[in-house]
Amino acid sequence: MTEVAVLGYGTVGSGVVEVLERNAAVIEHTAGDALHVKYVLDIRDFPGDPIQERITHDFNQILDDPDIKVIAEVMGGVEPAYSFTKQALEKGKSVCTSNKELVARYGSELLSLARDKGVNYLFEASCGGGIPIIAAINQSLIANEIDEITGILNGTTNYILSEMAESGSAFEDALADAQEKGYAERNPEADVEGHDACRKLAILSSLCFGKRVNYEDIYTEGITAVTHADILYAKELGMAVKLLASGWTVPEGDTKRFYALVAPFLVSPENPLFSVNGVFNAVFVHGNMLGDAMFYGSGAGKLPTASAVAGDMIEAVRRAGETIMTFDSTELLPITAIENESRRFFVRIPKEREEAAEKAFGEIKIVTVPELSGETGFVTEEMTEKAFEECAEKAGGIISRIRIK
Amino acid sequence: MTEVAVLGYGTVGSGVVEVLERNAAVIEHTAGDALHVKYVLDIRDFPGDPIQERITHDFNQILDDPDIKVIAEVMGGVEPAYSFTKQALEKGKSVCTSNKELVARYGSELLSLARDKGVNYLFEASCGGGIPIIAAINQSLIANEIDEITGILNGTTNYILSEMAESGSAFEDALADAQEKGYAERNPEADVEGHDACRKLAILSSLCFGKRVNYEDIYTEGITAVTHADILYAKELGMAVKLLASGWTVPEGDTKRFYALVAPFLVSPENPLFSVNGVFNAVFVHGNMLGDAMFYGSGAGKLPTASAVAGDMIEAVRRAGETIMTFDSTELLPITAIENESRRFFVRIPKEREEAAEKAFGEIKIVTVPELSGETGFVTEEMTEKAFEECAEKAGGIISRIRIK
Repeated sequence: MTEVAVLGYGTVGSGVVEVLERNAAVIEHTAGDALHVKYVLDIRDFPGDPIQERITHDFNQILDDPDIKVIAEVMGGVEPAYSFTKQALEKGKSVCTSNKELVARYGSELLSLARDKGVNYLFEASCGGGIPIIAAINQSLIANEIDEITGILNGTTNYILSEMAESGSAFEDALADAQEKGYAERNPEADVEGHDACRKLAILSSLCFGKRVNYEDIYTEGITAVTHADILYAKELGMAVKLLASGWTVPEGDTKRFYALVAPFLVSPENPLFSVNGVFNAVFVHGNMLGDAMFYGSGAGKLPTASAVAGDMIEAVRRAGETIMTFDSTELLPITAIENESRRFFVRIPKEREEAAEKAFGEIKIVTVPELSGETGFVTEEMTEKAFEECAEKAGGIISRIRIK
Repeated sequence: MTEVAVLGYGTVGSGVVEVLERNAAVIEHTAGDALHVKYVLDIRDFPGDPIQERITHDFNQILDDPDIKVIAEVMGGVEPAYSFTKQALEKGKSVCTSNKELVARYGSELLSLARDKGVNYLFEASCGGGIPIIAAINQSLIANEIDEITGILNGTTNYILSEMAESGSAFEDALADAQEKGYAERNPEADVEGHDACRKLAILSSLCFGKRVNYEDIYTEGITAVTHADILYAKELGMAVKLLASGWTVPEGDTKRFYALVAPFLVSPENPLFSVNGVFNAVFVHGNMLGDAMFYGSGAGKLPTASAVAGDMIEAVRRAGETIMTFDSTELLPITAIENESRRFFVRIPKEREEAAEKAFGEIKIVTVPELSGETGFVTEEMTEKAFEECAEKAGGIISRIRIK
C-alpha cells in the first residue's frame, strides 16, 4: 500500500478522494498496489465528513512523513501551491496536479526539479480535464513531430457559444445561464477573456514543440465581443463559432517559426472540432506521421478532472524511480508575432460601406442574413493579419471580424 | 543507441523504417536514446533500396543477435508471426506489433510470456492505427472503471458508408471506389463482413474489462446488406449509418454482464461518432469517473500505423525492464448473448404491410422517403433483440432492419 496526501479539499480534491476510494479495487488491480489517502490538507474542518479525521492544517505534517510518496496538489492558484510543490519534490515526493496557473508559470522549472530528485511532476488534469492529451503527447505520439495543436480548451466558453447557437440567446444571457448551472464562475473573466485557454495552450504547446512557451507571449482574444448577429452569420455560412487555442509551426528554411493564438474562430463542418458542443473540450493534433488526430471529453467537472489526477497518482506509484515526462527544457520558445500569419476573415460592415469594402479588400464573398437588414457580411480571400488590418482601415466602419479556421 | 529489427518490409514495415529514420532527431531527444534498425526480415530482396544491406531472410540471425533489444512484428497473419514473437519474447526481446489477428488470438498468452521474461509485448497499432487508444486504456484512464467502449474501428467500411451517404452510390460502387483508391483489399471480406472490427473489439474489450474476450464469441454483422435505400431513410431521420463495434457492461446485482457486438447502426448527430467520416476511425469510451471521451484519427495507412508501432518501440526502449501493460489475465470473459439486450430498431416493410407491422410492434414511428414509394420505414420503441425477432416474424415481409444507437 502506498500512502498519499491531497492538498485542498475543494471540488477536485474531494473528487480525488472519491475516485481513489470508489475505484479502489480496480486501481489496486491495475496499479499492482493500493493507494491510501493518509492526509488531506485544508484550512477548513469538515465535521461529519468521513475525511475529517485525516484533515490536517499543517503542510509540514505531510512533508515530514516519510510514508507519503505521492501528493495531489489540487489547491489552485500560484501560492502557496508553488512553495508546497517545490518542497515536496525536494523531499523526494512526486506531485500530481490540476493547477494550470502553476504549471503554465513554473511547469518547466518544477519538471526539472522533479527530474533532479528522481521523482515526477505530473499534470494531465491541467489541460482538458479528463482528456488524456498530455500522456498522448508525452508517450503515444512520441514518434511524431507535432506541427499543430488546436483545442477547444475551455468548457465555459464552449458552453456559452453552444447555447448562443442553439437557443439564440445573447452572450450575457448565455453567461448568466452558465453561471446558474455552475459552469461559469461568479467572476467569469479568466474564462470569457480567454486567459484560461491561453494558459492551457502554453502548457500543451511547450510539450509539443519542446521548449517553454510563455503564456504572456500568446495573443489572446476572448468571446465577450461575440454577438447573436455573429452567430446568425455563422449559421448562414454553415459554420460554428468556437474559441480555439492553437499553436503551430511553419517551416522556414532549415528551421521553424512557432505561432500561438487564442481567439474565436469560424469553424467549418469538415473540421472535427465543429461538432464539439456544450461543456466538452477537444484537442486536435497534427503529427508529421500520424496525420490528424483528435481527443474529446469532459474538459472540467469534479470527477473527470479528479480521475485524471488519480490516473497520474497511479502512474507515479507504478513508475516510481522513473522520469515519466520527456519534456525537459527551461529554454524559452520564441513565438512569432501573428501579423504575418495568413488566413481568411469574416467581416461585418454597414450596408452602405459594401462598395468601400470591395474596393479595400478586392475579391470578397458577400453573406447576408435576413434578420440583419442594415448590414452585410463578407468573407475575405486569404490574407495576412497585417494586410487585413490595413484593408479594414481603408474600408472603414467595420462592425466586427472573426477569423476563419 | 539501441539496435532494433523489423519483421516484414511491407507497407507498415517500410513505414516503421521511414518513421524511425525521418524523425530520428526528435526520437533521440524524447526517448533519450537513438533507435537503429539493424535488420529487416523479409523473404524478398529489395535491390536498389537503401534497406537492402540490412535485409535478412533468416529470423535466427535476429534472434541470436544479443544487440537486438526490440523487434517490430509487422508481418500480419498468425504464422510465422506467432512463432517468431514467442521466440523473441523468450529470448528477452520486446516485441511491438500492428498484427490484430495475432493479438486477438494470442494476445493474453503473449502478454503473460512477456511479463514472465521481464520484457514487453505492445500492440498500440493493432486497433485504430495511429489512435493512441490502448495507451489511454492502459494508463490514462486507469482510475476509471470503463463501462462502454464503442468504436468505428474499420476505415474501409467507414469510407464505403460515407461514400454511399455523400454521393448516393450503391454498396458495390462504393466498394469498387474504395478498392481503386487502395482503401479496400481485392478480397474485402475481412473488412466488409465485420471480421476486422470484431478482432479489434476483442482486443479493446479485453483491456477494458480485464479478462480475455474471445473474438469468436462476438456477434458480428457486416455492411454488405446496407443499401442506398437504407441511407435515404437514415438521412430522413437525420442520422448516419455506421459500422459500430461495441462492448459494454450492465450491472447485475453485485456482478456485471458483458456484451459485445459488431453491426451497422443508425447514429444520431448528438453522438460524437456521427461525424466521423471517410477512412477515419474513432473510439468512444465511457468511464465511471471520466464520463464520455472519444479518440479520433487515421485508423489505417502506412505512416499513422507505423508511427504507432514506432511509438511502442520507443516506449519499450525507455521503459526497459518494466512491465508496461497492466492487463494480465488469460481467463475468458463470458459474453452474454445479445437476445436480452434492449434498443430501438429501424425497419423497412412493403407499404401494404404497414398495418400488420403496427399490429405486431405496437407503437411505431413511421418514416417515409419520397424516392421509395412502394415501401415504408418505421422506428420501434425500445425492445429486446428477442422481442424484435418475434414481432418481426409476426409482422412478416420485413425488407431490412438496422439497430439504433
